[in-house]
Amino acid sequence: MQISSLLESLIEGLRCLPGVGPKSAQRMAYHLLQRDRKGGMNLAELLQNAMINIGHCQDCRTFTEQEKCRICVSSKRQQSTQLCIVETPSDILAIEQTGQYSGRYFVLLGHLSPIDGIGPNEIGLDKLKQRLANETINEVILATNPTIEGEATANIIAQMCAELDIIATRIAHGVPVGGDLETVDGTTLSHSFLGRQKIDLN
Amino acid sequence: MQISSLLESLIEGLRCLPGVGPKSAQRMAYHLLQRDRKGGMNLAELLQNAMINIGHCQDCRTFTEQEKCRICVSSKRQQSTQLCIVETPSDILAIEQTGQYSGRYFVLLGHLSPIDGIGPNEIGLDKLKQRLANETINEVILATNPTIEGEATANIIAQMCAELDIIATRIAHGVPVGGDLETVDGTTLSHSFLGRQKIDLN
Ligand SMILES: [Zn+2]
Ligand SMILES: [Zn+2]
Repeated sequence: MQISSLLESLIEGLRCLPGVGPKSAQRMAYHLLQRDRKGGMNLAELLQNAMINIGHCQDCRTFTEQEKCRICVSSKRQQSTQLCIVETPSDILAIEQTGQYSGRYFVLLGHLSPIDGIGPNEIGLDKLKQRLANETINEVILATNPTIEGEATANIIAQMCAELDIIATRIAHGVPVGGDLETVDGTTLSHSFLGRQKIDLN
Repeated sequence: MQISSLLESLIEGLRCLPGVGPKSAQRMAYHLLQRDRKGGMNLAELLQNAMINIGHCQDCRTFTEQEKCRICVSSKRQQSTQLCIVETPSDILAIEQTGQYSGRYFVLLGHLSPIDGIGPNEIGLDKLKQRLANETINEVILATNPTIEGEATANIIAQMCAELDIIATRIAHGVPVGGDLETVDGTTLSHSFLGRQKIDLN
Protein backbone atom coordinates (compact mmCIF):
# COMPACT_ATOMS: atom_id res chain seq x y z
CA MET A 1 0.00 0.00 0.00
CA GLN A 2 1.30 3.40 -1.01
CA ILE A 3 0.37 6.21 1.29
CA SER A 4 -0.62 8.64 -1.45
CA SER A 5 -2.57 8.10 -4.68
CA LEU A 6 -0.61 10.78 -6.52
CA LEU A 7 2.60 9.01 -5.51
CA GLU A 8 1.09 5.74 -6.78
CA SER A 9 0.28 7.38 -10.12
CA LEU A 10 3.80 8.78 -10.39
CA ILE A 11 5.30 5.33 -9.74
CA GLU A 12 3.00 3.86 -12.39
CA GLY A 13 3.86 6.70 -14.80
CA LEU A 14 7.61 6.14 -14.43
CA ARG A 15 7.14 2.63 -15.77
CA CYS A 16 6.75 4.00 -19.32
CA LEU A 17 10.55 4.25 -19.22
CA PRO A 18 12.26 1.17 -20.71
CA GLY A 19 13.90 -1.11 -18.12
CA VAL A 20 11.98 0.42 -15.20
CA GLY A 21 10.01 -2.14 -13.17
CA PRO A 22 7.76 -1.51 -10.16
CA LYS A 23 10.67 -1.60 -7.69
CA SER A 24 12.89 0.90 -9.49
CA ALA A 25 9.92 3.17 -10.29
CA GLN A 26 9.21 3.29 -6.57
CA ARG A 27 12.82 4.05 -5.77
CA MET A 28 12.86 6.84 -8.38
CA ALA A 29 9.67 8.48 -7.10
CA TYR A 30 10.80 8.48 -3.47
CA HIS A 31 14.27 9.68 -4.42
CA LEU A 32 12.88 12.68 -6.30
CA LEU A 33 10.42 13.61 -3.53
CA GLN A 34 12.96 13.19 -0.74
CA ARG A 35 16.09 14.55 -2.33
CA ASP A 36 15.61 16.15 -5.72
CA ARG A 37 12.31 17.92 -6.32
CA LYS A 38 14.15 20.49 -8.41
CA GLY A 39 15.50 17.73 -10.66
CA GLY A 40 12.00 16.27 -10.91
CA MET A 41 10.50 19.63 -11.95
CA ASN A 42 13.29 20.15 -14.47
CA LEU A 43 12.72 16.68 -15.92
CA ALA A 44 8.96 17.33 -16.17
CA GLU A 45 9.61 20.48 -18.17
CA LEU A 46 12.19 18.84 -20.45
CA LEU A 47 9.92 15.87 -21.11
CA GLN A 48 7.00 18.09 -22.04
CA ASN A 49 9.16 20.34 -24.17
CA ALA A 50 10.79 17.39 -25.96
CA MET A 51 7.57 15.43 -26.56
CA ILE A 52 5.90 18.54 -28.04
CA ASN A 53 8.75 20.22 -29.89
CA ILE A 54 11.00 17.47 -31.17
CA GLY A 55 9.80 16.65 -34.64
CA HIS A 56 11.57 15.25 -37.68
CA CYS A 57 14.25 16.72 -39.93
CA GLN A 58 12.87 17.87 -43.29
CA ASP A 59 15.71 16.16 -45.11
CA CYS A 60 16.58 12.97 -43.22
CA ARG A 61 13.56 12.54 -40.90
CA THR A 62 15.63 12.06 -37.74
CA PHE A 63 14.67 13.82 -34.49
CA THR A 64 15.22 17.55 -34.27
CA GLU A 65 13.43 20.59 -32.91
CA GLN A 66 14.74 22.60 -35.91
CA GLU A 67 13.66 22.36 -39.56
CA LYS A 68 16.80 20.42 -40.36
CA CYS A 69 19.05 18.40 -38.08
CA ARG A 70 22.68 19.16 -37.25
CA ILE A 71 23.98 16.52 -39.64
CA CYS A 72 21.92 17.74 -42.61
CA VAL A 73 23.01 21.36 -42.16
CA SER A 74 26.70 20.44 -41.79
CA SER A 75 28.65 21.65 -44.84
CA LYS A 76 31.16 18.83 -44.35
CA ARG A 77 28.37 16.27 -44.58
CA GLN A 78 26.93 17.99 -47.64
CA GLN A 79 30.22 17.38 -49.48
CA SER A 80 29.80 13.64 -49.07
CA THR A 81 28.16 11.67 -51.88
CA GLN A 82 27.06 8.83 -49.60
CA LEU A 83 23.61 8.41 -48.12
CA CYS A 84 23.02 5.89 -45.36
CA ILE A 85 19.50 4.51 -44.88
CA VAL A 86 18.48 3.47 -41.36
CA GLU A 87 15.24 2.42 -39.72
CA THR A 88 15.30 4.61 -36.60
CA PRO A 89 16.93 7.81 -35.26
CA SER A 90 18.80 5.79 -32.62
CA ASP A 91 20.49 3.81 -35.42
CA ILE A 92 22.15 7.07 -36.51
CA LEU A 93 23.52 7.48 -33.00
CA ALA A 94 24.99 3.96 -33.07
CA ILE A 95 26.60 4.55 -36.48
CA GLU A 96 27.97 7.98 -35.51
CA GLN A 97 29.64 6.39 -32.49
CA THR A 98 31.67 4.07 -34.74
CA GLY A 99 33.30 7.07 -36.43
CA GLN A 100 33.36 5.05 -39.70
CA TYR A 101 30.88 7.14 -41.61
CA SER A 102 30.79 10.82 -42.49
CA GLY A 103 28.02 11.01 -45.07
CA ARG A 104 24.36 11.88 -44.73
CA TYR A 105 21.41 9.79 -43.56
CA PHE A 106 17.83 8.99 -44.32
CA VAL A 107 15.61 7.59 -41.58
CA LEU A 108 12.74 5.35 -42.65
CA LEU A 109 11.07 5.52 -39.21
CA GLY A 110 10.21 1.84 -39.59
CA HIS A 111 10.41 -0.80 -42.24
CA LEU A 112 8.08 -2.22 -44.90
CA SER A 113 5.35 -4.30 -43.32
CA PRO A 114 2.41 -4.78 -45.69
CA ILE A 115 0.41 -6.72 -43.06
CA ASP A 116 0.47 -3.66 -40.80
CA GLY A 117 -0.34 -1.34 -43.69
CA ILE A 118 3.20 0.04 -43.80
CA GLY A 119 4.01 0.49 -47.49
CA PRO A 120 6.68 2.52 -49.34
CA ASN A 121 5.10 5.91 -48.63
CA GLU A 122 4.76 5.22 -44.90
CA ILE A 123 8.53 4.80 -44.70
CA GLY A 124 9.18 7.91 -46.80
CA LEU A 125 10.36 6.27 -50.02
CA ASP A 126 8.68 9.03 -52.08
CA LYS A 127 10.76 11.58 -50.17
CA LEU A 128 13.88 9.40 -50.55
CA LYS A 129 13.35 9.15 -54.31
CA GLN A 130 13.23 12.97 -54.53
CA ARG A 131 16.49 13.23 -52.61
CA LEU A 132 18.20 10.64 -54.81
CA ALA A 133 17.04 12.56 -57.90
CA ASN A 134 17.95 16.04 -56.65
CA GLU A 135 21.14 15.50 -54.68
CA THR A 136 24.55 14.28 -55.82
CA ILE A 137 24.53 10.80 -54.31
CA ASN A 138 26.88 8.13 -55.65
CA GLU A 139 26.29 5.45 -53.06
CA VAL A 140 23.32 4.46 -50.94
CA ILE A 141 24.39 2.42 -47.91
CA LEU A 142 21.53 0.26 -46.71
CA ALA A 143 21.80 -0.07 -42.93
CA THR A 144 18.34 -1.39 -42.18
CA ASN A 145 18.13 -4.11 -39.53
CA PRO A 146 19.17 -7.65 -40.57
CA THR A 147 15.62 -8.95 -40.14
CA ILE A 148 13.23 -10.24 -42.80
CA GLU A 149 11.47 -6.86 -42.97
CA GLY A 150 14.76 -4.96 -42.92
CA GLU A 151 16.09 -7.06 -45.82
CA ALA A 152 12.87 -6.64 -47.82
CA THR A 153 13.04 -2.89 -47.25
CA ALA A 154 16.70 -2.81 -48.33
CA ASN A 155 15.84 -4.70 -51.50
CA ILE A 156 13.08 -2.29 -52.52
CA ILE A 157 15.44 0.65 -52.02
CA ALA A 158 18.18 -1.14 -53.97
CA GLN A 159 15.74 -1.50 -56.88
CA MET A 160 14.96 2.21 -56.70
CA CYS A 161 18.70 2.95 -56.77
CA ALA A 162 19.24 0.66 -59.75
CA GLU A 163 16.59 2.59 -61.71
CA LEU A 164 18.41 5.83 -60.89
CA ASP A 165 21.87 4.37 -61.65
CA ILE A 166 23.07 4.80 -58.08
CA ILE A 167 25.21 2.15 -56.38
CA ALA A 168 23.41 0.50 -53.45
CA THR A 169 25.48 -1.28 -50.81
CA ARG A 170 24.38 -3.28 -47.80
CA ILE A 171 26.25 -3.24 -44.49
CA ALA A 172 27.58 -6.67 -43.67
CA HIS A 173 29.90 -8.68 -41.42
CA GLY A 174 28.94 -9.57 -37.94
CA VAL A 175 25.60 -7.85 -37.51
CA PRO A 176 23.78 -10.82 -35.99
CA VAL A 177 20.80 -11.95 -38.06
CA GLY A 178 17.50 -11.31 -36.33
CA GLY A 179 19.24 -8.70 -34.18
CA ASP A 180 18.60 -5.04 -33.64
CA LEU A 181 21.03 -2.54 -35.14
CA GLU A 182 21.04 -0.16 -32.20
CA THR A 183 22.19 -2.79 -29.69
CA VAL A 184 25.19 -4.01 -31.71
CA ASP A 185 28.62 -3.11 -30.28
CA GLY A 186 30.70 -0.46 -32.03
CA THR A 187 33.40 -2.80 -33.36
CA THR A 188 30.90 -5.10 -35.02
CA LEU A 189 29.13 -2.14 -36.53
CA SER A 190 32.46 -0.69 -37.77
CA HIS A 191 33.24 -3.98 -39.47
CA SER A 192 29.84 -4.09 -41.06
CA PHE A 193 30.48 -0.67 -42.58
CA LEU A 194 33.96 -1.55 -43.86
CA GLY A 195 32.75 -4.87 -45.31
CA ARG A 196 29.68 -3.58 -47.11
CA GLN A 197 28.84 -5.25 -50.42
CA LYS A 198 27.24 -4.04 -53.62
CA ILE A 199 23.72 -5.45 -53.85
CA ASP A 200 23.33 -7.92 -56.70
CA LEU A 201 19.72 -8.02 -57.74
CA ASN A 202 19.94 -11.32 -59.65
CA MET B 1 27.18 13.81 -30.97
CA GLN B 2 23.44 14.05 -30.46
CA ILE B 3 21.52 15.46 -33.37
CA SER B 4 19.33 17.76 -31.32
CA SER B 5 20.17 19.98 -28.34
CA LEU B 6 16.72 19.52 -26.81
CA LEU B 7 17.23 15.76 -27.00
CA GLU B 8 20.63 16.22 -25.33
CA SER B 9 19.00 18.20 -22.50
CA LEU B 10 16.33 15.54 -22.05
CA ILE B 11 19.00 12.82 -21.81
CA GLU B 12 20.87 14.90 -19.25
CA GLY B 13 17.64 15.61 -17.34
CA LEU B 14 16.76 11.91 -17.10
CA ARG B 15 19.97 11.34 -15.18
CA CYS B 16 18.41 12.87 -12.05
CA LEU B 17 16.71 9.46 -11.70
CA PRO B 18 18.67 7.09 -9.43
CA GLY B 19 20.45 4.28 -11.29
CA VAL B 20 20.18 6.01 -14.67
CA GLY B 21 23.54 6.50 -16.41
CA PRO B 22 24.23 8.18 -19.77
CA LYS B 23 23.52 5.01 -21.76
CA SER B 24 20.13 4.24 -20.20
CA ALA B 25 19.12 7.92 -20.25
CA GLN B 26 19.76 7.89 -23.99
CA ARG B 27 17.77 4.70 -24.44
CA MET B 28 14.88 6.18 -22.43
CA ALA B 29 14.77 9.43 -24.41
CA TYR B 30 14.81 7.69 -27.80
CA HIS B 31 12.25 5.15 -26.64
CA LEU B 32 9.80 7.85 -25.58
CA LEU B 33 10.26 9.89 -28.76
CA GLN B 34 10.03 6.88 -31.07
CA ARG B 35 7.37 4.82 -29.37
CA ASP B 36 5.64 6.48 -26.45
CA ARG B 37 5.23 10.25 -26.65
CA LYS B 38 1.89 9.91 -24.89
CA GLY B 39 3.59 8.12 -21.98
CA GLY B 40 6.26 10.84 -21.93
CA MET B 41 3.65 13.62 -21.76
CA ASN B 42 1.76 11.75 -19.06
CA LEU B 43 4.95 11.30 -17.04
CA ALA B 44 5.79 15.01 -17.42
CA GLU B 45 2.41 15.94 -16.00
CA LEU B 46 2.59 13.44 -13.13
CA LEU B 47 6.10 14.58 -12.20
CA GLN B 48 5.09 18.22 -12.12
CA ASN B 49 1.91 17.48 -10.20
CA ALA B 50 3.74 15.28 -7.68
CA MET B 51 6.69 17.63 -7.12
CA ILE B 52 4.32 20.55 -6.51
CA ASN B 53 1.43 18.92 -4.68
CA ILE B 54 2.89 16.12 -2.60
CA GLY B 55 3.64 17.60 0.80
CA HIS B 56 3.82 16.07 4.25
CA CYS B 57 1.13 14.57 6.49
CA GLN B 58 0.16 16.89 9.36
CA ASP B 59 0.38 14.03 11.83
CA CYS B 60 3.21 11.74 10.73
CA ARG B 61 5.09 13.89 8.18
CA THR B 62 5.15 11.22 5.45
CA PHE B 63 4.36 12.11 1.83
CA THR B 64 0.77 12.90 0.96
CA GLU B 65 -1.14 15.36 -1.21
CA GLN B 66 -3.87 15.47 1.48
CA GLU B 67 -3.74 17.06 4.93
CA LYS B 68 -3.29 13.64 6.50
CA CYS B 69 -2.00 10.43 4.96
CA ARG B 70 -3.97 7.22 4.47
CA ILE B 71 -2.39 5.56 7.48
CA CYS B 72 -3.11 8.44 9.85
CA VAL B 73 -6.79 8.65 8.84
CA SER B 74 -7.32 4.88 9.11
CA SER B 75 -9.60 4.11 12.06
CA LYS B 76 -7.92 0.71 12.47
CA ARG B 77 -4.54 2.39 12.87
CA GLN B 78 -5.98 4.91 15.32
CA GLN B 79 -6.94 2.03 17.65
CA SER B 80 -3.30 0.99 17.92
CA THR B 81 -1.24 2.30 20.83
CA GLN B 82 2.07 1.86 19.05
CA LEU B 83 4.00 4.59 17.28
CA CYS B 84 6.90 3.70 15.02
CA ILE B 85 9.58 6.33 14.39
CA VAL B 86 11.42 6.23 11.04
CA GLU B 87 13.83 8.51 9.24
CA THR B 88 12.22 8.63 5.80
CA PRO B 89 8.87 8.03 4.06
CA SER B 90 10.36 5.10 2.12
CA ASP B 91 11.13 3.38 5.46
CA ILE B 92 7.36 3.25 6.08
CA LEU B 93 6.96 1.47 2.75
CA ALA B 94 9.59 -1.12 3.69
CA ILE B 95 7.96 -1.74 7.08
CA GLU B 96 4.43 -1.94 5.64
CA GLN B 97 5.65 -4.61 3.23
CA THR B 98 6.69 -6.86 6.13
CA GLY B 99 3.08 -6.97 7.37
CA GLN B 100 4.46 -7.13 10.95
CA TYR B 101 3.24 -3.74 12.08
CA SER B 102 -0.19 -2.17 12.19
CA GLY B 103 0.35 0.91 14.31
CA ARG B 104 1.00 4.50 13.36
CA TYR B 105 4.21 6.23 12.28
CA PHE B 106 6.20 9.36 12.74
CA VAL B 107 8.72 10.37 10.09
CA LEU B 108 11.73 12.39 11.21
CA LEU B 109 12.69 13.32 7.63
CA GLY B 110 16.32 12.88 8.62
CA HIS B 111 18.29 12.27 11.77
CA LEU B 112 20.10 14.39 14.34
CA SER B 113 23.27 15.84 12.87
CA PRO B 114 24.50 18.81 14.93
CA ILE B 115 27.41 19.45 12.51
CA ASP B 116 24.89 20.06 9.71
CA GLY B 117 22.68 22.17 11.95
CA ILE B 118 20.05 19.45 12.23
CA GLY B 119 18.82 19.56 15.80
CA PRO B 120 15.69 18.20 17.55
CA ASN B 121 13.31 20.72 15.97
CA GLU B 122 14.58 20.08 12.44
CA ILE B 123 13.54 16.43 12.79
CA GLY B 124 10.17 17.35 14.28
CA LEU B 125 10.78 16.29 17.89
CA ASP B 126 8.63 19.21 19.15
CA LYS B 127 5.76 17.86 17.06
CA LEU B 128 6.49 14.31 18.23
CA LYS B 129 6.40 15.39 21.88
CA GLN B 130 2.94 16.92 21.32
CA ARG B 131 1.71 13.67 19.80
CA LEU B 132 3.11 11.61 22.67
CA ALA B 133 1.38 13.92 25.15
CA ASN B 134 -1.98 14.09 23.34
CA GLU B 135 -2.44 10.59 21.94
CA THR B 136 -2.77 7.26 23.70
CA ILE B 137 0.60 5.75 22.94
CA ASN B 138 1.98 2.92 25.04
CA GLU B 139 5.00 2.01 22.99
CA VAL B 140 7.32 3.96 20.77
CA ILE B 141 9.20 1.69 18.35
CA LEU B 142 12.44 3.30 17.25
CA ALA B 143 13.15 2.22 13.68
CA THR B 144 15.79 4.77 12.78
CA ASN B 145 18.70 3.50 10.70
CA PRO B 146 21.40 1.48 12.55
CA THR B 147 24.01 4.18 11.96
CA ILE B 148 25.74 6.42 14.50
CA GLU B 149 23.31 9.26 13.78
CA GLY B 150 20.32 6.92 13.77
CA GLU B 151 21.32 5.50 17.15
CA ALA B 152 21.90 8.97 18.62
CA THR B 153 18.48 10.04 17.35
CA ALA B 154 16.84 6.92 18.83
CA ASN B 155 18.47 7.65 22.21
CA ILE B 156 17.20 11.22 22.36
CA ILE B 157 13.67 10.03 21.60
CA ALA B 158 13.99 7.23 24.17
CA GLN B 159 14.84 9.88 26.76
CA MET B 160 11.80 11.90 25.75
CA CYS B 161 9.66 8.76 26.15
CA ALA B 162 11.15 8.02 29.58
CA GLU B 163 10.14 11.49 30.77
CA LEU B 164 6.59 10.82 29.57
CA ASP B 165 6.50 7.28 31.01
CA ILE B 166 6.14 5.66 27.61
CA ILE B 167 7.99 2.45 26.75
CA ALA B 168 10.57 2.94 24.00
CA THR B 169 11.77 -0.09 22.03
CA ARG B 170 14.42 -0.36 19.37
CA ILE B 171 14.12 -2.68 16.36
CA ALA B 172 16.84 -5.27 16.39
CA HIS B 173 18.07 -8.55 14.92
CA GLY B 174 19.71 -8.63 11.59
CA VAL B 175 19.50 -5.06 10.41
CA PRO B 176 23.13 -4.74 9.34
CA VAL B 177 25.03 -2.04 11.20
CA GLY B 178 25.92 0.91 8.97
CA GLY B 179 23.18 -0.16 6.56
CA ASP B 180 20.15 1.63 5.22
CA LEU B 181 16.73 0.57 6.50
CA GLU B 182 14.94 0.84 3.16
CA THR B 183 17.26 -1.62 1.40
CA VAL B 184 16.95 -4.43 3.97
CA ASP B 185 15.01 -7.50 2.81
CA GLY B 186 11.56 -8.14 4.25
CA THR B 187 12.50 -11.18 6.34
CA THR B 188 15.33 -9.39 8.09
CA LEU B 189 13.07 -6.45 8.75
CA SER B 190 10.31 -8.75 10.09
CA HIS B 191 12.80 -10.30 12.50
CA SER B 192 13.97 -6.92 13.64
CA PHE B 193 10.38 -6.03 14.53
CA LEU B 194 9.69 -9.30 16.36
CA GLY B 195 12.98 -9.08 18.28
CA ARG B 196 12.70 -5.45 19.40
CA GLN B 197 14.09 -4.68 22.87
CA LYS B 198 13.16 -2.20 25.56
CA ILE B 199 15.77 0.58 25.62
CA ASP B 200 17.80 0.60 28.83
CA LEU B 201 19.11 4.07 29.42
CA ASN B 202 21.76 3.07 31.97
ZN1 LIG C 1 18.57 15.66 -41.05
ZN1 LIG D 1 0.30 10.47 8.31
